[in-house]
Order: sequence, then C-alpha cells, then structure tokens
Amino acid sequence: MSEIKIPLRDMRFAMREMLDWDQHYETLGFEDASPDVVDAILDEGAKFCENVLAPLNQIGDQQGCTWNDGEVTTPEGFKEAYQQFVEAGWPSLAHSVDHGGQGLPPSLGTALSEMVGTANWSWGMYPGLSHGAMNTLEAHGTDEQKETYLTKLVEGSWTGTMCLTEPHCGTDLGILRTKAEPNDDGSYAITGTKIFISAGEHDMAENIVHIVLARLPDAPAGTKGISLFIVPKFMPESGDRNQVVCGSLEHKMGIHGNATAVLNFDGAKGFLIGPPNKGLNCMFTFMNTARLGTALQGVAHAEVGFQKSLAYAKDRLQMRALSGPKNPEGAADPIIVHPDVRRMLLTQKAFSEGGRMLTMLCAKQVDRTQAGSEEEKQEANDLLAFLTPIAKAFLTETGFESANLGMQCFGGHGYIAEWGVEQNVRDARIAMIYEGTTGIQALDLLGRKVLMSQGELLRKFTKIVHKFCQAEIDNETLAPFVTKLQEINKEWGEVTMHVGAKAMENPEEVGAASVDYLMYSGYAVQAYLWALAAKVASDNLAAGTGEQDFYNAKLATARFYFDRILPRTATHASAMLSGAENLMSLDAEHFSF
Amino acid sequence: MSEIKIPLRDMRFAMREMLDWDQHYETLGFEDASPDVVDAILDEGAKFCENVLAPLNQIGDQQGCTWNDGEVTTPEGFKEAYQQFVEAGWPSLAHSVDHGGQGLPPSLGTALSEMVGTANWSWGMYPGLSHGAMNTLEAHGTDEQKETYLTKLVEGSWTGTMCLTEPHCGTDLGILRTKAEPNDDGSYAITGTKIFISAGEHDMAENIVHIVLARLPDAPAGTKGISLFIVPKFMPESGDRNQVVCGSLEHKMGIHGNATAVLNFDGAKGFLIGPPNKGLNCMFTFMNTARLGTALQGVAHAEVGFQKSLAYAKDRLQMRALSGPKNPEGAADPIIVHPDVRRMLLTQKAFSEGGRMLTMLCAKQVDRTQAGSEEEKQEANDLLAFLTPIAKAFLTETGFESANLGMQCFGGHGYIAEWGVEQNVRDARIAMIYEGTTGIQALDLLGRKVLMSQGELLRKFTKIVHKFCQAEIDNETLAPFVTKLQEINKEWGEVTMHVGAKAMENPEEVGAASVDYLMYSGYAVQAYLWALAAKVASDNLAAGTGEQDFYNAKLATARFYFDRILPRTATHASAMLSGAENLMSLDAEHFSF
Repeated sequence: MSEIKIPLRDMRFAMREMLDWDQHYETLGFEDASPDVVDAILDEGAKFCENVLAPLNQIGDQQGCTWNDGEVTTPEGFKEAYQQFVEAGWPSLAHSVDHGGQGLPPSLGTALSEMVGTANWSWGMYPGLSHGAMNTLEAHGTDEQKETYLTKLVEGSWTGTMCLTEPHCGTDLGILRTKAEPNDDGSYAITGTKIFISAGEHDMAENIVHIVLARLPDAPAGTKGISLFIVPKFMPESGDRNQVVCGSLEHKMGIHGNATAVLNFDGAKGFLIGPPNKGLNCMFTFMNTARLGTALQGVAHAEVGFQKSLAYAKDRLQMRALSGPKNPEGAADPIIVHPDVRRMLLTQKAFSEGGRMLTMLCAKQVDRTQAGSEEEKQEANDLLAFLTPIAKAFLTETGFESANLGMQCFGGHGYIAEWGVEQNVRDARIAMIYEGTTGIQALDLLGRKVLMSQGELLRKFTKIVHKFCQAEIDNETLAPFVTKLQEINKEWGEVTMHVGAKAMENPEEVGAASVDYLMYSGYAVQAYLWALAAKVASDNLAAGTGEQDFYNAKLATARFYFDRILPRTATHASAMLSGAENLMSLDAEHFSF
Repeated sequence: MSEIKIPLRDMRFAMREMLDWDQHYETLGFEDASPDVVDAILDEGAKFCENVLAPLNQIGDQQGCTWNDGEVTTPEGFKEAYQQFVEAGWPSLAHSVDHGGQGLPPSLGTALSEMVGTANWSWGMYPGLSHGAMNTLEAHGTDEQKETYLTKLVEGSWTGTMCLTEPHCGTDLGILRTKAEPNDDGSYAITGTKIFISAGEHDMAENIVHIVLARLPDAPAGTKGISLFIVPKFMPESGDRNQVVCGSLEHKMGIHGNATAVLNFDGAKGFLIGPPNKGLNCMFTFMNTARLGTALQGVAHAEVGFQKSLAYAKDRLQMRALSGPKNPEGAADPIIVHPDVRRMLLTQKAFSEGGRMLTMLCAKQVDRTQAGSEEEKQEANDLLAFLTPIAKAFLTETGFESANLGMQCFGGHGYIAEWGVEQNVRDARIAMIYEGTTGIQALDLLGRKVLMSQGELLRKFTKIVHKFCQAEIDNETLAPFVTKLQEINKEWGEVTMHVGAKAMENPEEVGAASVDYLMYSGYAVQAYLWALAAKVASDNLAAGTGEQDFYNAKLATARFYFDRILPRTATHASAMLSGAENLMSLDAEHFSF
C-alpha cells in the first residue's frame, strides 16, 4: 500500500494563487489568518494527516466498528488519534472565540477537512459531524445551551450528530414520525427511531450531542411541523445516561471505520432548540456547509485514487509503448507510457485538482457570508447557493469516477484489498447518496436555485465567466480556452431557457432535465476554473517562474480538460433537451414483463 | 432482499423474435434444438437458477471461501447446488456428443450461462471456468487427453481452470516465468506461481484440471515461447495429489463466493497440450468465447440492478410527483413517479435488454463458426471477432453503470448490505478488468480488428446496418430511429478514417483514441439493435399482437435509448478526434508535485 501525501503545493495553488485567499482574509478582517499562520496550519495539518490518520485508514476498513449491547468500539488507534487531534486544538480552528474557538476563517477549516478526509475519510466523519451540531447551536441555541454544549463541541471533548433519517423517510422529512412530548420541567421526551446516524455512537469522546428532528404534539403535518431538539447521550449536569441507545450498526459497502448507527430514542430527555415547528428552516441554514463537506469527499477520493494509480503506473512494467520501448533495459515499459493509462490518470488529475478549485471557491464564499456589507454577504450567499449543489453532486460523481479509474489502472491488483484502491471505491460510493442524492441536488439546482430565481443565480455566475473571457480574449495562450468557454457559457444560458420554457407547461420537465442539467453545469463551472488556472499558470510562466514544470503541467491539464472532458456537455445538453415524454410515457407496471 | 426472476420473456424476444434462433438452429442442422426443446431447457434452467442458485448469492458474499492449509471450503450450499447441477446434466448441454455432451448449440449454453450468472455470478464461475479448459482440450488435446480429461469435464465431475497470470504479469503474458522441464516419462515438471486463478481450488468437484501457460527450456523469449500444459490436481490413474497447492486466497472487493487462488506449482506433473511454443496461439482461439462469457456478466449485473431497483421504486413512498400526488391516499408517492428515478430505471433497462441482444447476436455467430460452408464460417468469425471486444468491454462498463444506478435508486438503503444492491456493484466491478481490461479490449478492437483489417471488419458490420436502414426507411414508426442510425453509421466510418489516418503517422494515436472508439462503437451497435427491436415490436403491434404492453414498452425503451443514451457518441467522437498530444505531452515525472 502506497503512502498518501497531502497535496500541499496544489492546495496553495488553488487557495492562494487562483483565489487569492491572502488578500481575501485581509479584506474580511481575519487578522490572525496571516500568510505565515495559514502556511503553518497547512504544514502541521498535513503532517498530522499523513503520519497519524492515513496509517489508520486501511485498519479502519478491515476492523470496522463493533457493537456490543449498545456500546460501540471504533477501530484500533481511532480513539488515540482523536485525543491527539483534540489536544492539538484542531476542532476549534474555525469556530468563534466566544466559545473557545480560534476564530480563524471557515475556509481554513475546509482546507483542514480536505486534508483529514484525504488521509482517512471514515475517521474524519467523527469530528466532521460535530460541525452540523455546532453550527446549529451557534445560530439557534440559547446562551445557556451554547455554554453547556457548544463549548464542549468546539473543544472537541464531545462530538455531535445530526439525527434526521427514519426507516421510512430520508429525502422526504415531511413524513417523519419521531415525537417530542413536553415534560413538566420544560424539557421534552423524545421517542422514535433514527437510522443512518453517522458517528451516532462511539468510544472516542466523553459525550455525544445529538441534534434530533421530531414533532411536537399537534404539530402541523409535513415539513412545517418539525422541531429541533438537543438530546445528549449523557446529561451534562448529572452525568446520567439518557434514554437514547444504539440498537445496531449498519453493515455497509464502505466507510467501515465510521459507525452508522440505528438510534432508539425511548422517552429520551431533549431540549428544544430554535422556534417550535421551524426545525427544517433552521436545518436549511446549514445545508450548504454540510453539502460542501460532502463535496470534499469527492475531491478526497479523486486525490487518493490519483496518487495511488500514478505511483503504480510509474512502477508497474507491462507491455511496450506502441511507438517503441521506453525502458529498453527492463522487461517491459512502465504502464504510464500507454496513452490510455495517461487518459485515466489525467482524468483523475483534472477532477481532483479541478474539484479542489471548486470547493475552495465555495469555501471562500462561506467566509464572505460572515463579513462585509449586507450586499456583499448576499452576493456571496447567492454564489454559494448556486455552486453548492453542483459541488456536492458533480464532485462526488467525478470523485467516484476517479476512484474507479484509479482501480482500473491497477488492473486485477486493484480488485484486491491489499492496495487500498478498492476501499477507495467503496468509500467514495456513499458520497453520491448522503446529504441529498445527486438527484436531489439536481432538483435543488435547477428547480429551487435557477428556475425559482428566474435564472438570476445562474446569470450571476455566467457574468463572472463572461467578464473573465472579455479580459483574456487577447491572451494568445488562453485563446483556445476562452473561445470554448465563451461558447459553453452562452449555451448554458440557452439550455436553461429551453428547459425553463418547457417547465412552465409541465413541471415534470424539471425532474426530467435535472441531473443532466447539473452535470452540464458542473463541466461548465470546471471549464471556467481550468481556464482561470491556465491564466495563473501562463502569467507565472511569462513572468519567469522557478516552477516551470508545475505551471506547464497545469496548462497541459487544462488542455486535456478542454479537449477530452468538456465535450461531455454535448451529451448532457442533448439528453436534457429531449424532454420528459421519453421518461414518463411508460406505465409503472410495464417496465418489466 | 427481493427475489431474482430470470427474464425469460425478454430472452425469448432477443433469441427468437429478433434473431430468429429457431430458423438458425434448423439451418445449421442442430436437429435436437427444436423450439420445444429450447423452451423446455430455458424453463428448467430458469427454475434451477431461481430456486437453487439465487438464494445462495448473498450467502456466498457473506461467507466467502475459506482457506485452510491449502484446502478451500466454498460457502454453504455451493457444493450441493453443484451436485444438483451435475446430476441434471447442465454441464454437458452444449458439448460434443463424442465426449458425453448433449450436442446442443453453443448459443444455448450462452443462454444458460446468462441465467446462471444472473442468479449467482460467483457460483457460476466454477462451471464457467471449465469451458476454457474444455475448449482447449477439444481443439488441441490428443485423443487420450480428451478421453482422460474432457469426458470428466463435460460430465461436470471435474472442473477446470485457466492459469495465465503471474504476480508480475497479467496483460503482458510474454514475460511470464513459470517453467516446464521435461521428465523422463514424457511429462513435464511445472514450477512457478500463478495468481488470480478463479475457481483455482475448491471442494465442489472430485478433481481440478488446470490448463497452465509455461515456458519450455530454451523457449524463445516473449509470446513465442509459451506452451500449454494440463496439470491435474489429482493424477487421473493413481489418484495421487499433484504438486500444485493453493498458497492463499485473495481478499477481493466482490465475487466472494468464488475462490481466487494463488497456485504454487512446485515441480507439478504436467502434460503438453498442442504444439510446443504455440500456447498463446492456442489460447487466442478461445479468447472470443471467454470474453463473451464475461460480457454476460455485464448483462447479468445490469439485470439484477434493474430488477431490484424497479421493485424498490414501485414500493418506496417518498415525496410527491412534481405534477401533483399520484397516490393521494398514501403518505407519499412511490418514487417511480419521479422522472429522474425513471431515467435511472430506463437506463438499466436499455442496457440489460440491449446487452442481451448483443450477447445473443454474438452467441449466434459462435454457432455459425461451427457449421456451414467455409465462407459462412469466415463471415461468422469476422463478425464475432469484431463484436467480441465491444461486447466484453462495453457491456461490462454499462453493467457497472447499471448496477450503480440500481444502488442510486435505493438511496441510503442501497449502501447497506441487506438489499444486495451493493454486492451487485462490487461483483460487477471485476468484469471491466478480468479477461482483458476495457483498455485491452479497446486496443484489440481498434488496432487488431479494425485498423489491421483496413476497416474491413467494421464495414462488414456497417453494411448490415446500412441494409437494415435501406429496408426500413419508409416505415413510419421506425423513421426516427432509422434516420439517426444512418447518421451514426456514417459517422462511425468517418471517425475510423480520421483515427486511422492519424495512426499512420503516430502509433500512439491508436491507444489515445481506443477506449473512446470502443465506447462509441458500443453505442452504435446498440443503436442498431434497439432499432431492430423497435422493428420487431412495431411489426407485432401492426399484426395485432396479444402482448401490446410488452411491445409498446420495447418501442418506448428504444425511444429512450435514441433520445438519451445514444447522444453519448458525440462526446466520445470529440474526445477520440482530439488526438494523442493532450495525453502524451506531460512528462511522467510532472503528473504530480
């Protein structure tokens, strides 16, 4: 099994050179996030991820979590690694100083999450799930709730969960059944079963803070009758065990190191957070951040697949190059000489590096939603609202594709557990499902974001692209990228108009076009980012950089992307414009005979 | 876990209605394969697969095979099922009566293999691997070898393997190291390590006949120095254990029910089969059949994914249709009302049914290579040579896509082992790798078959398509299909010319275009087959069939295929025409920094 390296050089390229985070932090007033501090955090984080977390990744997969009478034991080394993580202060990095946080920008937390996820996604979910709970408490908790729970979560001595899904409902939370009945002391008795609760029970922290969706008595039906509750595993004051018990763990395809729990709430003591019946609204506030977290998973698995197959492709000798031996003294040539192996490697490279650019662009907007004028905040919010479903769905789809290409480079050896590439495929697969499937993200993008804003959210992005194209149209190196980018940018608006017009007549047209629309949008966004990367690279080359090979590789990858990946938009455009009839005409009973 | 049904109605549609196997069997002189007999075989085979094999599929995955000091125990029930299989005479179905076979057409064996594979792919590999050994013996064995080994394999009391791969070589057999040294008695002492040997050791049959690739002393280097040997696990006369021992089993992503063995040959007694140093040529004779067997795996997993997700989509209630409730008395609508769920189901349906048409078309050619005039045989051989790499690679790629879409329809529940859809994904993944990866099939298609024949093999197929289009151009129902099919058929020739011209200048252009060329060809072949299916359906509808719903569903699926799947050719055409430069420019050391 090859070692994983955190791609620090590439992270700095995206963060600093493409998206100018140094200036951005200064503008937003994050005084502590000076370039030196950021560098030190990235270096230290990378060390921890490479040396402590990465070696536990395969162990986590092999051992999994074990359930015994409600107690869950995590794989060997997970608990100790978490203690080190807490001692080093990583959980508090990007949280408010009011609750013990270090007050650094959220985007720096995203960079840390990417590094952790690349090293060991399953492990990273334990601290990762705490974020949802922390954000919910920060925005909607009372001062007392913040004092009691948030401080512990920020410190990392407790972890959090989000308890949404029930056996009969995941996407459709409007039909959830868990009930919350008032106790005399102002608390509530929570009763019901929640499933698929990531990090729902474990031995890594002193306490677990569950944020639970439930219905108050006489709550309105549907999504307007859902409230949010804090349900601690142990009561903060008394230390008594609360009536929330892990009934079992799911046997899953992957992410074995993370405990996916069935939680039985049997009159568990809970505390209302936020206004009654507004639970879903409170949740939606943080959907973008949670989805951005899952988008990182796509980048992480693309990166892991790429690193492993690149190392293997340089090492494995098999067949001679079609144009003659490249390693004549060896028994055969390294497989990286073969164009089709390079096609697979470059696809992974384009998706992992391009995915990083997109998640970093989103993370930058998260920072911007927290500072500056209301107008600036709204602008950042709009951009984030538009980009988030794309980042979540597109990057997890391409992350899975990349993980699979990584396996394909290994041939038969990739199917064997030893090399860790099949684990990477299994772990990557869940990302297209949880936090809203690709289909759900696509409806969010096309229906809720693009069409409900009458195209406004799309236009805000295409204007950025247009401006870029206008500025670079005379740059000779960039001309081939800019020309194609302009075409795509124009077509993007046109297909949106077409689909929107159809949707006015038949709402099913939205669902019929949605996933192709999302994938189209993903390739379009990536085209902009790769053109931007090419600009940064060509500027550096023109200025006489000492890193010629690095920047030339960026240009080569941009060319590969435009030549071989971007043409996928043609297929998605045709499919989405073909209309709903070819999907809806068949009676449900006539799909099979 | 839902039950698997063998899709008999659809198999009959492809075999009988589309490809006219009844007439075909009569023409070739397979007198025993009358329509009644074929029907009885399909019905009985389906019963055995549904009742005996399918219930063992999940058990096989959960228990896997266990190794103990060289002995391998297969999962519970596997051995008993194999006994029943042998007792019912299934192994001998399509083998020559000279060696105890039933003499039925090879294509009927393909139909049986599809059924077995759909029910339980891992189990099916035990009898499946015997075919390679049987075919090798039949074509190249001496009468004595046939008498000793072939009869037992046909009977099924022994099974066979093909021992090709070694730790340092899979694709590149020219560098294999296993050696065969002559003994005084005319036999050979075989020494070396073979890996990834499917069904390499197990407890299901009395004996195992390994067909082993090895080098004679002083054999020429490379592929021209490889010979074939029979190495039995137990010596046929004495019953003595031969020096071939299973050193371990691989821990794999899937197909856990099948034993993937490391075999150590330590001076094992072997017998030369075929001429010395011509082993690889002998193997290539049967490559098409073995690859067709793997193509079936794509169809099998597409079918399983489709059946499971279709049942789930009709049952699972989640959200309301965008055009208003379809199940107002329920808490929500079944998810099959949602257009994007239908898109996923129809994609699986198009790939499983379309894949079946292609494997059946190939199987028909296998029959034809064994009877008729030399010219007819050559015609069948050419068509088979052209279609086989497409069937193997395209159908395993689309089979994996379908298996994944099946999981996607299940949402989070699909990631859990319980429903068997994640097993289906894991099992499907190997098919794109073994028996030659997608990349290897693509080089075979574009380099060896199309370009080396100066396009002749392609033209033989496009002429069939052209003739079909000419005949149906005035058929109103078929017009939309025929028009698009004509365009694709023309473009297919053009892109081949382009790539061929480039390849004359730079051989790397072949590898650079190959996989996109193969996928393009797959979609083109499927377009022909779906147009043909539409013709059969529309003919039946015009004639006043009693199965209107069935034939209308075929027409609807053909429409879906042409509207939403066939446009993928545009992407592949662009990518393959973009040339090798965008793959080859980057130095191997500059892929990552």
